[in-house]
Formats: sequence, structure tokens, C-alpha cells
Amino acid sequence: MTASAAAAGVQVLAFDIFGTVVDWHGSIVSEMAREHPQVDGAAFATAWRAGYKPAMARVMSGELGWTLIDDLHRMILDDILPRFGLAHLDEPARRHLNRVWHRLNAWPDSVEGLTRLKRKYTICTLSNGNIGLLTNMAKRAGLPWDCVLSAEVFRAYKPDPATYLGVARVFDLQPAQVMLVAAHHDDLAGARACGLRTAYIERPWENGRATAKDCSAQPGNDLHARDLNALADQLGC
Amino acid sequence: MTASAAAAGVQVLAFDIFGTVVDWHGSIVSEMAREHPQVDGAAFATAWRAGYKPAMARVMSGELGWTLIDDLHRMILDDILPRFGLAHLDEPARRHLNRVWHRLNAWPDSVEGLTRLKRKYTICTLSNGNIGLLTNMAKRAGLPWDCVLSAEVFRAYKPDPATYLGVARVFDLQPAQVMLVAAHHDDLAGARACGLRTAYIERPWENGRATAKDCSAQPGNDLHARDLNALADQLGC
Repeated sequence: MTASAAAAGVQVLAFDIFGTVVDWHGSIVSEMAREHPQVDGAAFATAWRAGYKPAMARVMSGELGWTLIDDLHRMILDDILPRFGLAHLDEPARRHLNRVWHRLNAWPDSVEGLTRLKRKYTICTLSNGNIGLLTNMAKRAGLPWDCVLSAEVFRAYKPDPATYLGVARVFDLQPAQVMLVAAHHDDLAGARACGLRTAYIERPWENGRATAKDCSAQPGNDLHARDLNALADQLGC
Repeated sequence: MTASAAAAGVQVLAFDIFGTVVDWHGSIVSEMAREHPQVDGAAFATAWRAGYKPAMARVMSGELGWTLIDDLHRMILDDILPRFGLAHLDEPARRHLNRVWHRLNAWPDSVEGLTRLKRKYTICTLSNGNIGLLTNMAKRAGLPWDCVLSAEVFRAYKPDPATYLGVARVFDLQPAQVMLVAAHHDDLAGARACGLRTAYIERPWENGRATAKDCSAQPGNDLHARDLNALADQLGC
């Protein structure tokens, strides 16, 4: 099947953000190198991100009430700072550091790829990040979203079906008219289970330059692309 | 006080949409002239819009459950069609006509004014229209939002305080760091009561070319501008 046949009828492309569109690991490493050069930035970025799924699980289990990712990031940050010799950071410094997630850099292909895809499709975020975070990030990095959708809108984190089906509902479409674009197979599997189309994006350096991520194709995804420009090529944009 | 002093500290401009950024009356009149020329388009547009506030009031009173504006528009449409000799319209025709609210034309100054304001501020919608409607409208009309916020996000219609305060909360700002831009004094009064700054935009032809709306300045608003380019002038954008 050709790529355009695999995407027949699709009107909306919904994008995972952290890792798929922006380079969270490299951005945090750079900021730490500038502002806290005594810290192992790669280990710090990895530790911060490692707290993310467990923190969301506490919300989804009901142990914590509904919580924005900004606040989950801050809880994890406060937890890991002593381990990295940064227990002395005061409130303004912690607040500033926590906002690094609003200042993540796009992968080199993201702005061009999204701009091309936007000509033919409605492009939106579908991230567990909160709306303010995603909007500030987009404004700084030049990401040209038609619409910023978030777990915050649906009050559920991915891979909860309410998020994937929520995109279809917002645009009054069938699930198969929406394609999730992501660099994570578990996210894509969640979308596929709800009837969405899926496109996998290779991001071998998502977890840092030290360890290439396995980006081999897995069955089930409609499309598999090296980056967002390659996706635009496949979709004829 | 100068305009820039009146807006000191403002980071986000939130825009009312129907009437303020797009010309609902003129757009519906044009579409009716093309597709249903036997109908008095101006009377039809006015009747449709007149059902809007009462329909929202039924939701906010609890008589109706939470309902998207697309669905409220459809209820009102079904109600008024017989009065205009259009009771014969079938389901696809009604569905198409109802989507005219996604196809509203921007006022002539809107795209340029928003593009200028976006350089200095985060610009978002704050409309009772649903997210899909606002996104489709923006894509067609070229409205360059940083973020699409809606009653749908806050599950409350303006002038409920949850909407105005919701914008400040989404961006982690104080209410006075957000300015509502609108052509309706009741909307602006609701925002002001929540501590937001306010800018009134003159739209004398909002209700049609037959009846100029009174656009004289009223006390309480921080800014008063002829259109969005004039607002950009005042704010030094």
C-alpha cells in the first residue's frame, strides 16, 4: 500500500511532542551546561524524565487529583535536586529551571516539516504537556500549530482512550480520519486501539547522544518516517 | 494614561471571536444570497444569532447538559428553518448550513492586526465557540492564533468567571496580565470583574449594514480602538 493510500481520508494530524517534535534530552543538557555546569546534564535529564510516567500513573490511579504536567515536573524536580547537588536552589531558581520544558528546542526538521504538512492537513498537538507549556514552546520554537490540544483539555493523559478519541470528537470526525504522529510505539498502540491511523517517526537520539534508540519498524503502524520532512514527502505535501 | 501604560504587564491577549474578529452577520448574509437567495438573509442571520444567548442560558441553568456551540447552533437552526420557508432542507443540507459558523469571514483588519499583535503578545481565542469550529475558521480565514481557547476547555460559557480566570490559569499568570479584546461591553464587564484588563473594539456593522451599533466609549475599559490595527498601533506593535 502506498503512503497516500494508508492516509486516505485523514484530515487531522495530531502530534506527540516530547521526543517527537522537540528534543527534550538535548535541550535540558544544553541548559544545564550553561546554568549548572557542575551537574551531569545527561543523567539529570534522564532522571527528570524517568519520573514522568510514574507521576502520571499516580494521577490516573486517583492517588493524586488532576495535576498539570508543569506541577508534576516540579514535584519530580524537587525530588531529584538533592541527588544532583542542587538542593540549595531557591524558589525562583527552581521555578525557572522547571520552565525549561517550555523552552525545549525543536528537532532540525520539525518547523519545516510541520509547515509543509499544515498546507494539506489540520495539525495539532496531542501531548500530556499542559496548554500553557505547549503554547509557550510553540511560540519560542516557531511550531505552527492550527490548534493546541492537550491532556489538560480531556482531563486524561495518553494512553487513555479519552485523549485519542477526544481529538476526533473535537473535530467531529471518525477516529480513522485522525492520524497520531509519534516516536513512541506505546503511544501509537493506544491510538491504534481507538481506531486512529498512526505514523511512527524515528528519533534515535531522543534519550541522548550516548545511546541510540531502536527505531526499527514495527507492524501495525500505517506509516514509518525518518523525520517530519520525510513524512511530508510520503503524504505529498 | 497612555495605551502602553494601560497595558503594562499584559502578556496574553484573549479575543472574543463572533463580531470582534469575524463578521458573522455579513458572512451568513453572503452565504444565504448564494445558496438560498429566496430568503431574507439579514433577517435569517439575526434570528439565528438571537437564539444563541437563550440556548447558552439553558445549558448554564442545568436544563441542558454541557453542549457544544455547534450543537446549539443546530438546535436553533432547526427551530427557525420553517419560519424562513426552509423546512424542506434535508440532513446533509442542514449540516452544511450549520457549518457556516466555521466559514465566517474575518473583518478586513483582523489578519494584519493579529499578526502585528502576535509579535509582542501571546494571542488566543476566548470564545463560546467550540475548538473545532474555531480551528476550522482560523485555518480558512488565516487567523494566526498561538492557541485556541474556548468555553469547551473550561466547560462554561462567557461571562462565567471560569472562562476569564481560566485563561490566566492556563498561562500561569495573574488576571491583570491578561487582556480581553471584545466588541461587547457585557463580555468586557465580565472580564473586568475577574481582574482582567479590557480593550473594546468598535464593530459598528456587527449586526448588519442596516443598523449601526452604538460604539461610543464606555468607562471602565483600559483601551478603546477602532479596529485591530488601531489596537496594534496603541500597543506599539
